[in-house]
Amino acid sequence: MKLIETRVAIIGLGLMGGSLARALQGNVASLIGVDINPISLDYARGLDIFDHLSPDSAEGLRRCDLAILALPVRGILDLIARINRDLPAPPYLMDLGSTKKAITRSMQALPGEVNPIGGHPLCGKETAGIQASEADIFQGSTFVLTPLARTSPACLSLAEELAASIGARPLVMDAEEHDRMLAITSHLPYLVSVTLTKTAIEAEGPDRLLRELIASGFIDTTRIAASDVRMISDVLLTNRVHLLQALRHFSGNAETLANLIENGSPDALCEGLMPIQRWRQGIQKHAFEEA
Amino acid sequence: MKLIETRVAIIGLGLMGGSLARALQGNVASLIGVDINPISLDYARGLDIFDHLSPDSAEGLRRCDLAILALPVRGILDLIARINRDLPAPPYLMDLGSTKKAITRSMQALPGEVNPIGGHPLCGKETAGIQASEADIFQGSTFVLTPLARTSPACLSLAEELAASIGARPLVMDAEEHDRMLAITSHLPYLVSVTLTKTAIEAEGPDRLLRELIASGFIDTTRIAASDVRMISDVLLTNRVHLLQALRHFSGNAETLANLIENGSPDALCEGLMPIQRWRQGIQKHAFEEA
Repeated sequence: MKLIETRVAIIGLGLMGGSLARALQGNVASLIGVDINPISLDYARGLDIFDHLSPDSAEGLRRCDLAILALPVRGILDLIARINRDLPAPPYLMDLGSTKKAITRSMQALPGEVNPIGGHPLCGKETAGIQASEADIFQGSTFVLTPLARTSPACLSLAEELAASIGARPLVMDAEEHDRMLAITSHLPYLVSVTLTKTAIEAEGPDRLLRELIASGFIDTTRIAASDVRMISDVLLTNRVHLLQALRHFSGNAETLANLIENGSPDALCEGLMPIQRWRQGIQKHAFEEA
Repeated sequence: MKLIETRVAIIGLGLMGGSLARALQGNVASLIGVDINPISLDYARGLDIFDHLSPDSAEGLRRCDLAILALPVRGILDLIARINRDLPAPPYLMDLGSTKKAITRSMQALPGEVNPIGGHPLCGKETAGIQASEADIFQGSTFVLTPLARTSPACLSLAEELAASIGARPLVMDAEEHDRMLAITSHLPYLVSVTLTKTAIEAEGPDRLLRELIASGFIDTTRIAASDVRMISDVLLTNRVHLLQALRHFSGNAETLANLIENGSPDALCEGLMPIQRWRQGIQKHAFEEA
């Protein structure tokens, strides 16, 4: 099945669902949008890119070839469970959840006629909601695809075409491996950012002097602590094993660096920091070249 | 003494010294620049804003009313020690070091004719060197001033005028309090950023797959890990007591959050994260309003 012949239903019209709809416009046979929130539905109607909008998941699932679940992780798990019970089963089913193991595991129980695949576009903003959606949010970003053993080549191919059509680089990988890596590159940074913010809150006196002493380093390092809590808490909870293991590695590394600061010579400290600085500068350059 | 009548020597022509020279241009009687690095001196000459340039600190100190030490913290401590021994003593002496207690303590031993004051403009970039200098780097930022008991009102007043003249907000505070606060708002964020980067380096396999899975959260959270190592290691070492205490608070908070993730209900986790998100959103708004 080609993307241009595919009737797509996007279930969940938030930042990701809304952005995907904008990016897919013109590349698909039709676009159905589903959200239980009337404000989001109204906003979606104003965009004038959907062929049909509904508050009812069943309607979206029934009228599409490919259903894309663009909900927080627990919302995705709930909807898959409801398809397993009584909701209509679409021919193709993809999700955009930020963790993949729990979701692909639940996809294994889907009715035999469904072709499921996990998806995770690595992009986002601190601002939630369809009001913040943008078509080009996916441009140049990685779009992870985690097929199941039961996923057909046609389903994987459709998912790859979809990712490429919105300007992302499809990357096929194992769901477990995805979660282990993302614990390091995304969930641990969030946890660290939140912990840093909490530490600052506790150090802030009633005079709020601390706020005068915040410079760009703190602003950058704590930016993701402002992320949507409902969305991220699902992520932390469905990847807790990998995340807590990553935190243990982090804590061990913090102790090593603290020892260097407490007992090491200035030269030893510099030698410890240099390779980290160089690696990070390489990432910066890479990201810049990609931009 | 008014700023416009003041002959200023800037010792150390890196990012901060160079930016300060650009920002002070036209607001002072004359500008002398000192750096032992011939490349920095050549670059400074090309800017055409200095009345005199020299590789010799003694020359700068002898020919100025106000000497500003814009070196890494250990360089500042070395130069103060040399003034205490045999270098010419300027009437007014200020530094731009990122920690203040060790520096103001060493300033106490300066000859009686010197009027010393600690300074710390809270701004910067990851890129070091006079080549990256900009006049407007100080605009809207806080410029901390830490007077000693021996600092005259005239010296404090000159320092405040200088800070205001380059677009910064002067903030007078105690050196110890500065270091305790900056441990939270600057040095701990650096340490956390470096630790996060080290953790990612260790998780990266030979296939470099991890780099494909880096999104904006990791980029923001680790940005300051690319900072100049020589500069920052001086900062960490001269503020190690406050920094290691801040790290202990951070580790305790990380453990609390890890327990919520491991054992808490989704609602308990959200309730724990919400006030942190709200505080951080307030900071963001504040920074935005200031910009």
